[in-house]
Amino acid sequence: MEKIDVAVLGATGTVGQKFILLLRNHPYFEVREVVASQRSAGRPYTEACGWKQDIPIPTNVAGLRVKSIEEQLQSRILFSGLDSSVAGTVESKYAAAGHLVISNSSNHRMDPQVPLVIPEINPEHFQLIYSQQYKGAIVTNPNCSTIFLAMAITPLHRAFGVEAVNVTTLQAISGAGYPGVPSMDILGNVVPYIGGEEDKIETEPLKILGALSGDVIEPVSMKISAQCNRVPVYDGHTETLSVKLRSNPSLTEIRRVLEGFSGLPQELGLPSAPQKPILVLDEPDRPQPARDSWLQNGMATVIGRLRKCPVLGIKMVILGHNTVRGAAGAAILNAETMVRQGYMKNGEHLPKGQRRTPIPVPAESR
Amino acid sequence: MEKIDVAVLGATGTVGQKFILLLRNHPYFEVREVVASQRSAGRPYTEACGWKQDIPIPTNVAGLRVKSIEEQLQSRILFSGLDSSVAGTVESKYAAAGHLVISNSSNHRMDPQVPLVIPEINPEHFQLIYSQQYKGAIVTNPNCSTIFLAMAITPLHRAFGVEAVNVTTLQAISGAGYPGVPSMDILGNVVPYIGGEEDKIETEPLKILGALSGDVIEPVSMKISAQCNRVPVYDGHTETLSVKLRSNPSLTEIRRVLEGFSGLPQELGLPSAPQKPILVLDEPDRPQPARDSWLQNGMATVIGRLRKCPVLGIKMVILGHNTVRGAAGAAILNAETMVRQGYMKNGEHLPKGQRRTPIPVPAESR
Amino acid sequence: MEKIDVAVLGATGTVGQKFILLLRNHPYFEVREVVASQRSAGRPYTEACGWKQDIPIPTNVAGLRVKSIEEQLQSRILFSGLDSSVAGTVESKYAAAGHLVISNSSNHRMDPQVPLVIPEINPEHFQLIYSQQYKGAIVTNPNCSTIFLAMAITPLHRAFGVEAVNVTTLQAISGAGYPGVPSMDILGNVVPYIGGEEDKIETEPLKILGALSGDVIEPVSMKISAQCNRVPVYDGHTETLSVKLRSNPSLTEIRRVLEGFSGLPQELGLPSAPQKPILVLDEPDRPQPARDSWLQNGMATVIGRLRKCPVLGIKMVILGHNTVRGAAGAAILNAETMVRQGYMKNGEHLPKGQRRTPIPVPAESR
Amino acid sequence: MEKIDVAVLGATGTVGQKFILLLRNHPYFEVREVVASQRSAGRPYTEACGWKQDIPIPTNVAGLRVKSIEEQLQSRILFSGLDSSVAGTVESKYAAAGHLVISNSSNHRMDPQVPLVIPEINPEHFQLIYSQQYKGAIVTNPNCSTIFLAMAITPLHRAFGVEAVNVTTLQAISGAGYPGVPSMDILGNVVPYIGGEEDKIETEPLKILGALSGDVIEPVSMKISAQCNRVPVYDGHTETLSVKLRSNPSLTEIRRVLEGFSGLPQELGLPSAPQKPILVLDEPDRPQPARDSWLQNGMATVIGRLRKCPVLGIKMVILGHNTVRGAAGAAILNAETMVRQGYMKNGEHLPKGQRRTPIPVPAESR
Repeated sequence: MEKIDVAVLGATGTVGQKFILLLRNHPYFEVREVVASQRSAGRPYTEACGWKQDIPIPTNVAGLRVKSIEEQLQSRILFSGLDSSVAGTVESKYAAAGHLVISNSSNHRMDPQVPLVIPEINPEHFQLIYSQQYKGAIVTNPNCSTIFLAMAITPLHRAFGVEAVNVTTLQAISGAGYPGVPSMDILGNVVPYIGGEEDKIETEPLKILGALSGDVIEPVSMKISAQCNRVPVYDGHTETLSVKLRSNPSLTEIRRVLEGFSGLPQELGLPSAPQKPILVLDEPDRPQPARDSWLQNGMATVIGRLRKCPVLGIKMVILGHNTVRGAAGAAILNAETMVRQGYMKNGEHLPKGQRRTPIPVPAESR
Repeated sequence: MEKIDVAVLGATGTVGQKFILLLRNHPYFEVREVVASQRSAGRPYTEACGWKQDIPIPTNVAGLRVKSIEEQLQSRILFSGLDSSVAGTVESKYAAAGHLVISNSSNHRMDPQVPLVIPEINPEHFQLIYSQQYKGAIVTNPNCSTIFLAMAITPLHRAFGVEAVNVTTLQAISGAGYPGVPSMDILGNVVPYIGGEEDKIETEPLKILGALSGDVIEPVSMKISAQCNRVPVYDGHTETLSVKLRSNPSLTEIRRVLEGFSGLPQELGLPSAPQKPILVLDEPDRPQPARDSWLQNGMATVIGRLRKCPVLGIKMVILGHNTVRGAAGAAILNAETMVRQGYMKNGEHLPKGQRRTPIPVPAESR
Repeated sequence: MEKIDVAVLGATGTVGQKFILLLRNHPYFEVREVVASQRSAGRPYTEACGWKQDIPIPTNVAGLRVKSIEEQLQSRILFSGLDSSVAGTVESKYAAAGHLVISNSSNHRMDPQVPLVIPEINPEHFQLIYSQQYKGAIVTNPNCSTIFLAMAITPLHRAFGVEAVNVTTLQAISGAGYPGVPSMDILGNVVPYIGGEEDKIETEPLKILGALSGDVIEPVSMKISAQCNRVPVYDGHTETLSVKLRSNPSLTEIRRVLEGFSGLPQELGLPSAPQKPILVLDEPDRPQPARDSWLQNGMATVIGRLRKCPVLGIKMVILGHNTVRGAAGAAILNAETMVRQGYMKNGEHLPKGQRRTPIPVPAESR
Repeated sequence: MEKIDVAVLGATGTVGQKFILLLRNHPYFEVREVVASQRSAGRPYTEACGWKQDIPIPTNVAGLRVKSIEEQLQSRILFSGLDSSVAGTVESKYAAAGHLVISNSSNHRMDPQVPLVIPEINPEHFQLIYSQQYKGAIVTNPNCSTIFLAMAITPLHRAFGVEAVNVTTLQAISGAGYPGVPSMDILGNVVPYIGGEEDKIETEPLKILGALSGDVIEPVSMKISAQCNRVPVYDGHTETLSVKLRSNPSLTEIRRVLEGFSGLPQELGLPSAPQKPILVLDEPDRPQPARDSWLQNGMATVIGRLRKCPVLGIKMVILGHNTVRGAAGAAILNAETMVRQGYMKNGEHLPKGQRRTPIPVPAESR
C-alpha cells in the first residue's frame, strides 16, 4: 500500500508531538507537513517544537519547516492536536477545503454530524461524514478519560445493560499539555477540579454508545456522574468506577465479558490496535499509572479490583495511557480504521458516492 | 483545673509523635509516660523516637525514659497510637488494670461495648463504657477517612436522611505511618488499594450514626461504598462523595445545613475543638490537601464543589488533616469531651456508679 | 513609633504575596498600596492576586484596589517584587520620584551606587544611597541562593579568610515564581540549569563582602564557582559547599565561628531578625528543605554535615527558606535596619544631609 | 556459541530483578538458578520476587524455584545483587566452591586481589583473579555514582591528567533498593546524606584508574571530594563535577576527547556495550534524569553543560541510569568482556594456567 501523506496540526504541542512520535515508521501514513500557530510558522520544526519526548525527533520530520494554520495544505489527512481555542474554526476551514480532519480536539465532538468514534465500539458512526456540509470531513475521538470509561462499560452495556455510572478520575499532568499545570499547584498536592472535564465524561459516552439512525445518532439512555482530580502523576489516568447494571451477573461473568471484548481494529489487525483492548489484572493493588500505562504499547484499557459495590452493584479501577490511547493513539486508530474500511479509496477524495452502503473490510487488507 | 497525668502508647510512631506534639502545653493533660515496644524500652525518648515532626520534641517529654508495653503504668489516661498488630491485647490489658484507654487503633472499634466516637456526632455513646467488663475502659475514634466522611454526612442525615454514599478517597502517605509507603511505590504514582480501609469506611459510620439503646448500639441503615487510593501527598486526605438523600433539598439548603453544623465540643469550647467543624469553600478548585489541611488548626472538615449528581443526587469534595483531625487530634478531643462531661470526676476512677445517668456539662467548666 | 506607609510593587506575584504575608501586623510598616501591571490595575486585590498562600489575605490588604506601575504612589517605602522584565525602569522611576525602593529584583543589584545588603554582613553599604542621583533611593538584597552562601562564608572569611568556594545548589520550585516551572519539567526530575543564577551566585557575594571606600565598593577577592539545579521541592534551597580557607582551623573552631555569628539585626532586635542567623545541626542527614526551612521563622541559614574536604579543605551542606530569608524577608529586614539606623528619620525624606556620618543605633529603639 | 548457565544471587531484590530483566534473551547467558535468602527459598520465583519491573517476568525465570544462599549451585557464573549485609561471606563461599562471582555488591570491591572493573577503562585488571585464593573468583563493578564519574574523568585523565575532582550527586531513589527510602522522607524533599556513598566515590576511582603491576594495583594519585544527596527522582543519578586538570586544554579539545572515548566493549561489539559510552549534549538544560537516563539503552554516561570553572578549571553535569549502567548492566558487561576475552574458555574452569599471559581478543568473536 502506498503511504498517505498526512499533516499534523498543532504539531509543537504535547498531543502534536505524540502524533509525530506514534506516526514514525507508520505503514499507512507519512508525515509531510507540520502546522502550528503564526508564532512558530516558518521555523524548522526542530527549533520550534521544544521537543519533550524521550526519543529524538524522527528524521523525516526534523527537517520540515513549520507551516501556519493560515496556509493551504497538501496532505490528504490532517491529524489535529490543536488547542480548543482555535481548533473549532481551523478544523472547519480545512474540512471545507477538502481535507479529512482526524481531530483529538473537543470542539466538534458533540456536533450532530461529526462522528465521535472509538473504533472498537462504534466504527459505523464514521458514515456520519456523508451528511457533513464540508467538501472533506471532520472525525473526532473522545476525551481521554471518556475513552477508558467507554471501553470499560461498552461490553457491560452490551451484555447486561448499564443504567448508571459513578466515576472519580485521578488524572495525570500530561493531560493538561505543556506548560500546562504549574508545578507549584500539583507537587505533593491534588487539585479536585479540571475545567470542562466532568461535563465531557458525562455526555460523550452517550453519543458513542448511541445508535446511528439515518443521519442522526440517538444517544443511549444512561446516567453518568463524574468527579475529576489532577494528581502528581506524569502519564496515565486512573478512574474508580461504580456501575449499576440492569441485570445481576456474577463477577466471573463480568470478568469474562470484559476480557473477551474485541472489535473491528482487532479483527482488521490494525497497526495501532491493541491485541486485547481490555486487560483485567488480578493483583489487589493494580492497575497503577507508573507501572501499567504502557501495557499493549499504551493502547490498552487496564482494569483491576473488580468487586461488588454496596450502592450501585459493581465497582472497579480502570487505567489508560492518556496521551496514547487517550489522545494521539486514539486519533491514529480512527484514521487506520477509516483507511481500511475504504473511506479513503484512491487516497484522493472521500467516496461520498458510496454513502450509507455498508462498507466491507477489503479482502486484500485483512 | 489540675492537670491529669497521661501516657502515650506507641509513642515513637507517627501517631504517637503527633499525640506528643498536640499535647504540649495542653490545659487538661500532662504527658508523664511514653510507652513503646520492648526494642525501645529503657532508652531516653529523644534517642528512641526518630522524631519526624517539624518542631522540636517538647521539653517535658524529651527527658522521659521509654517504658515497655509490658510494664505497669501510673497515668490515669492512656492515649494509644499502637500498631494494630499489638493494640488489641495491650489495650485490653491496660483497660483491665483500670486505665482509661483513648485509642486511635482499629482493633476495638467495632467491639459492641466499645464507644466509637466523634464528639460532635455521638458523645452519648461514651456511656457504653459502663457496660465494659474492664475495671477501666476503652474508647476509640474512627479511621481517618471515616471521620471526614461521617462529619460531612451527619448534618445531611439529620436534616434530610442519607440513603447511600459513594466515596473515593485520595489518601496521603502519612496515613501509613513510618517507614510506611516505600517511595518506589508512590513517587509519581497512584496505588488504588489500601488494605482494610474500604471495609472500615463502609462499616464504621453505621455505628457512629447508630442509636444507643440501653447497652446496645443499633447501627443506622445506610449503604456506603468506598474505593481507596494512596496518592503522593504528604498530609491531607481528599474524598469525592456522591450522596443519595431521602428528600430533595436545594444546594442552598444543603450548604446551610453543612455550614451550620456544630456539636458538644463547640458548645463546651473544648481546647482542641475547631470553632467551625465544617468549612464550605466556594473556589471551584478547592479544597486541596497542600493548601487547606491546616484550616482550624488541622481540626476542620473542609468541603468544596457542592453540586448536583446525576446518579445519586448530590456530590462534593471533602478534605481533612489525616494525622490531626483524622487521628491524634480526634483521640484528644474524645478525651477532652469525657473529662468535661464528668467521666473522669476526681481524676481517679471512672464514676461507674453514675451509670446511664445523663451527664450534664459541669457549670464550672463551661 | 508611628507606622510607615508602604507599597508593594508586583503585589500579585509570588514574592509580592510573601511581602504582604510577612508585613501583616508589622510593627513598623503598614501596607497601604498594592501595585501591579496594567492588566491587574483597578481590580480589588482579592480578585486580582490569585492568592497562593496558606493563610488568608490580610484584611487590611484584601480591600485595596490594585494600582498600576504607571501611577504615582503615596507611600514612602516601596517593597519591590517586580519581575526583572520591568523592575529596572519602574524602580528607577519611583526612586527618581523620591521613594525609597527596597527591591528584591536583580536588575539594580550590581549598579555601583546601589547597596546590595544582607544586614548581618554589610549594613554600612546602605550609605551608598547618598551617592545615588535619585531624589529617593534604591536598595537591594541578593539572590536567594547567594544569601545563604554569603551568610555561611562571611564568618569564615572574617575569621580565617576564604580563598575559593565551590557550590552546587538544589533549588525549590517556588524560586521560579508562579506559574514558573511547568510540572511536566520537574515532577520526578532534576533540571541542571537555572538561567542567570550561576552568574549571580559567583558575583554578588564579592560585592556584599566588599569594602565601602568613599562612594565605591571594592569587591572582595575570592573565587566562586556555582552549579545550579532545580529539584522537585516546594520551598527551601539546599546547597553543597566546598570552601578553601587561607588558614587551617579545626572543624571545632569553624563550627564555633559559624554558630557565634551575629550582626546588627540581632543587636537591634529587629522584628524580622532571626535570633541566631546561623544554626548548625548535628544529625548526619540534615538539613532537609521539607523539615528545616522554617527554623527561626524561615529567617535562619541552616548548616549541617560540616567536615573536611580532600580537595578544597572543608565542606558542608547549607539550607534556607528561599522566599522568606531568600526574598521577601530579606528585603523587609533591610527596611527594618534602615529605619532603625535613622535613614528614614521623620518618615519624610532620606536624611541626605547626614551623609557618611556614622549612624548610631538610636537609644530609644534598642 | 553455546549459552553459559548463570545464577542470580539476591534475585528478588531491586538489582536482582534488573539482572533478570537485562539477561532475558541474552546471547551468552541463560538464567538457570535464582537464589535468595532462606525466607524466599523453596517458593516459585513469581511468588517470592514482588516483581517491580514494567515488563512481565521472563518466562524462563518465572517457573524457577528460588534456592537458598545456603545451597550448592550448578551455574558457572553467578551474578550477585546481594545485600551488603550478607554479600561478603556468601560470595566468598561460592568463589571458593569454584564459581565465577560477578558482583555488584560493595563488600569485596577494595580487596587487593579483587578486580574492580569498568571494561571500557581497566579490563586488564581482570587478571587479578589469578592471584585469588579461591578455586573460582570474584569480580566486581563500582558503585553506581562512581561509574559515571570514572567514565567522565578517564578520557580527561588520559589526555590531560586529572589532579582533583569535586562532585555533588543528586541520586535517584531506586539506588536504595526496595523498600528503601520511605516516601515520608523524600516526597518534596532532599536528603543530603547517603550512608557510605561519599567514601566509595572518593576511593573506588583511584583503584579503577590504577596500574596493574604484577599482582598489585597501584592506585592513581588524584584527589576526589564527594557530597551525596538523595532526590525525589525514580531512576537516574545526576552529578555536578568540577575538575582540575594538569594542563589547560580548550573546551573544544575537552569535548572532542570525551566524545571520542571508546574501549574494549565497543571494540568487541559486546551485546550490552553502548555504541558510544559517553554522549555529550548541547542543550543548556540537559542532561535530565527523567528524559535522558535511557539513552543507549541505559548504558550511556551522558554529559552536558561543559564549561569553565573559576575554582578548579572545568565543570560539567553528568548523568547515568543507576540500576542499568550503574549496577546490573555494569556487572553483565563485565561478564561479557571476560567471556569474550577467554577467561571462561571451555565454560568449565577459569584457565588459571594461562595466568598473566596477555589475553588476545579471539578472532572468531570480533
